[in-house]
Amino acid sequence: MINRERLWNRIMALSVIGEQESGGITRLSFTEEERAAKDLVSSYMKEAGLSVREDAVGNLIGRKEGSDPQASVVLVGSHVDSVYNGGNFDGPLGVLSGIEALQTMNEQDIQTKHPIEVIAFTDEEGARFSFGMIGSRGIAGTLTEENLKNRDKQGISIAEAMRQAGSDPTAFRNAAREKGSVKAFIELHIEQGKILENQNLSVGVVTGIAGPLWLKFTIEGEAGHAGTTPMSIRHDALAAAAQMMQVIEKESAATGSTVGTIGQLQLFPGGVNIIPGRVEFTLDLRDINETVRDQVEQKILEQAETLCAERGVKLQVEVLQRVAPAPCSELVQNAAKDASLAAGLETFTLASGAGHDGMQLTELCPMGMLFIRSKDGISHNPAEWSSLEDCADGAQVLYHTVLNLAK
Amino acid sequence: MINRERLWNRIMALSVIGEQESGGITRLSFTEEERAAKDLVSSYMKEAGLSVREDAVGNLIGRKEGSDPQASVVLVGSHVDSVYNGGNFDGPLGVLSGIEALQTMNEQDIQTKHPIEVIAFTDEEGARFSFGMIGSRGIAGTLTEENLKNRDKQGISIAEAMRQAGSDPTAFRNAAREKGSVKAFIELHIEQGKILENQNLSVGVVTGIAGPLWLKFTIEGEAGHAGTTPMSIRHDALAAAAQMMQVIEKESAATGSTVGTIGQLQLFPGGVNIIPGRVEFTLDLRDINETVRDQVEQKILEQAETLCAERGVKLQVEVLQRVAPAPCSELVQNAAKDASLAAGLETFTLASGAGHDGMQLTELCPMGMLFIRSKDGISHNPAEWSSLEDCADGAQVLYHTVLNLAK
Repeated sequence: MINRERLWNRIMALSVIGEQESGGITRLSFTEEERAAKDLVSSYMKEAGLSVREDAVGNLIGRKEGSDPQASVVLVGSHVDSVYNGGNFDGPLGVLSGIEALQTMNEQDIQTKHPIEVIAFTDEEGARFSFGMIGSRGIAGTLTEENLKNRDKQGISIAEAMRQAGSDPTAFRNAAREKGSVKAFIELHIEQGKILENQNLSVGVVTGIAGPLWLKFTIEGEAGHAGTTPMSIRHDALAAAAQMMQVIEKESAATGSTVGTIGQLQLFPGGVNIIPGRVEFTLDLRDINETVRDQVEQKILEQAETLCAERGVKLQVEVLQRVAPAPCSELVQNAAKDASLAAGLETFTLASGAGHDGMQLTELCPMGMLFIRSKDGISHNPAEWSSLEDCADGAQVLYHTVLNLAK
Repeated sequence: MINRERLWNRIMALSVIGEQESGGITRLSFTEEERAAKDLVSSYMKEAGLSVREDAVGNLIGRKEGSDPQASVVLVGSHVDSVYNGGNFDGPLGVLSGIEALQTMNEQDIQTKHPIEVIAFTDEEGARFSFGMIGSRGIAGTLTEENLKNRDKQGISIAEAMRQAGSDPTAFRNAAREKGSVKAFIELHIEQGKILENQNLSVGVVTGIAGPLWLKFTIEGEAGHAGTTPMSIRHDALAAAAQMMQVIEKESAATGSTVGTIGQLQLFPGGVNIIPGRVEFTLDLRDINETVRDQVEQKILEQAETLCAERGVKLQVEVLQRVAPAPCSELVQNAAKDASLAAGLETFTLASGAGHDGMQLTELCPMGMLFIRSKDGISHNPAEWSSLEDCADGAQVLYHTVLNLAK
C-alpha cells in the first residue's frame, strides 16, 4: 500500500510554489517558480531513493534501477508547470504519485526486471510560449529548432528562456530516447471533466486522447479616430473578430462533442478612442474524432473569410499546432485494468478531452493514462480539486500498473 | 502674414519626438517623450518673444503682455501629447500656430489691449490613463483629487506620474483660472473627418463639439479547461463580450450619426487553453446630439444585461467620463468668421465629432475652434496628414481671430 498522507502532504507543499492571491498557481516554464518546484520534487525523488538528473530539455528524472541492465525502461510521470492561475493537481499529482509508487517499492525492497524512471516533463501546458509538451517532444525526438523559436508575451523565445535558465538550447537533441529503449509510458492525471464524478468512481483507465488544434488568427483592418470616423466607412479589426468569435462558438456547439476556445486576444494600437487596426487571437479546437474537428475548422475558416471580405479587412490564419487524437496502447490499458482489480476498484474506461504528454510518445513506446475524479469537473482554475482518497486510489492503481509493466 | 515655412518646419521638427517604427507618434503624458516635446515648444515660445512658464498641472504657457494690465487674457492653443501610434498634426498644429500668430504680431510690433497666452494643455487624449483633458480641467477648476487616481496599464496613477515628472500633485488647484480672468479660448485643429475635404475648403469655423461617453465593461464568467468543458456548460466571459460588441456595432450604426468604438480589451487569465473567466473592455460612444447618444447607450445596456443573464455571467459597467456636447460661443465664432474673410477665405461652419479641450472650458469663458482639412479624414494614425498650404491658411485665420478677440 502506498503512503497516502505522504503523497497528500507533498501535493500540498508543492501547491505553495507560484501561488497567486486568488489561491491559483502560475508556474510557467523556465521561471523561478518552475525551478523552485523542480528543486522540491528533486528532494522528494532523493528521499524515495532515486538517482536524479535533468536531461537536455529540462525534464527532471528520478531513476530506480532494474535487475536486468539490458532491459528497457518504464516511464511514469507528468509535469509541474501550470497554466496562468491554474490548480494544484493538474500535473503535480502524476509526478508525486510516480515518486510515491517507487518509494513504496523501495521501502518494501521490491526489485523489478526493468528500470523505472519517474519524470516531470518540461512545459506540458504551453501557457508561456503558446507551444506545449516541450519535454515529451524532446524525449520523443520530434522537437525541432523551429519549435524553439516560439516566443512568450515579452518576446523571449524558448531557446532564449532555456539559455537564461542555464541550459544549452543547441543540445536539445540529446534528450531524445532511442526506439526500443522505453517499454511503456504511464501517466496518472485528474480527469478535468465530470464523467467519473457522474459515475461515482474514483479511478478510470483512459482509452485515448483528443487532439488539440491551435490556430492563431490575425485580422488587419484600419485604425482611425473613434469620434470622427462614421460607422459606415470603418474597417474595425475588433468588430470582425467579434463576429468571428460568434461563428466559432456556434459551430463548436453544433456538433455536441467539439469544444472551441479563444483564450488569448490582443488588439492594436489599444487606445480608448482609437478604432482597432489589428487584432490577434488564438483558437483551441478539440474533438475525440479528428474528422469532426477538422470539419468544424473548415466551417469556421470559410465563414471567417467571407465576413472579413465583407468588412474589407484582411485575415491570416496560422497553425500553431495540429495534433491527431492518440489512442492508448492495449499493453498499458490492460496493465492498468489489472491494477484496478488488484487495488479492489471497478474497471472503467473513458476518453480524454484534454491533451497530455503521452500523445507525443505514441511513436516511441506504448502509452497510457489513468484518471481520477475531479470535483465538479473544474480544472485550469484555482477551484480545481480532487480528494485525498481519490488521489490515494489513483496512486495505488498507478503503483500496480507500474509493477505490472516493469516485471 | 504669418511665416508658413517657419510653422511647417516646426511641425516637422516636433514630429520626430516619440516617433515609432511605423512613422506614427506615441507621446503619452508625463513621459520623457512628452517632456522633450514641451522643451522644444518652450524654445519656440522664447524665440517668439513670449515669457514661458508651466502651471500646477503641467500646462506649458507662453505669454505676450497686453497694453491694459487689468484686461482679461485671450487663450489660444492645443496639446502636444498623442494617442498610441498617432499622427503629427493632432495637437501640435494648434500649439505651433498659436506661437506663430504671436511671433508674427511681435515681429510687426502689434500691441493688443488684452494679454494673449498660447497654451499646450497636459494630456488631452487620455491615452495613458483612459482619462483625458487633464490640463483644461485644471484650468477650468473642475479637476478633482479622485480624477488623479486614474491609473495607466502599469498601475501608475496620474498623481504618481505627476510626482515622477517632478511636480507636486497636491498643488493641482493652483492651475485653476478665476472666472472673468479669461476673455476667450480659441483652438486651431485638424478636422479628423472628411467634411472640409468634400467641400474642397481649407478652413472651417466649428459650431460645437460632440460629447464623448466613455464606459468600462467588466464581464465575470468562469474560467475552465479548454479541452474538457463542454460548450453547453460554459460561462465564457469573452463569448459574452463578443455578442455585446456586435450589439454595440449594430446600435451605433442604426442612428446614422452615432459612433461606438471598443478601443481597449483585456481578458483573464489569458492562456491559449483556458476559457476566459473575465473580460474588460472600454466603449467610446459619441453623438452631436446628447439625447440620441444616451438612447443608444440605454439600448446597448439593456441588451447587454439580457445576454449576460442568459449566459450566466455577471456584468458591471462603470462610467469613465460622460461629457455633454459643447456649443461654441457666438463671440468666438463671429471673431473667427470675420478672420476667415480677412484672410480671403470662404466662411464655412461645421460640427466636431471629436472631443477637444474647449469643452472643458465652457463654464470658464467663451470658447471656439477652427478646423483645417484632413487628408482622407484620417487621424489617430500614422497616415494623418494636412498640407503646408492648409496649415498656413489655418494659422492665418487663427492670427486674425486672436487679434479680433484681443483688441
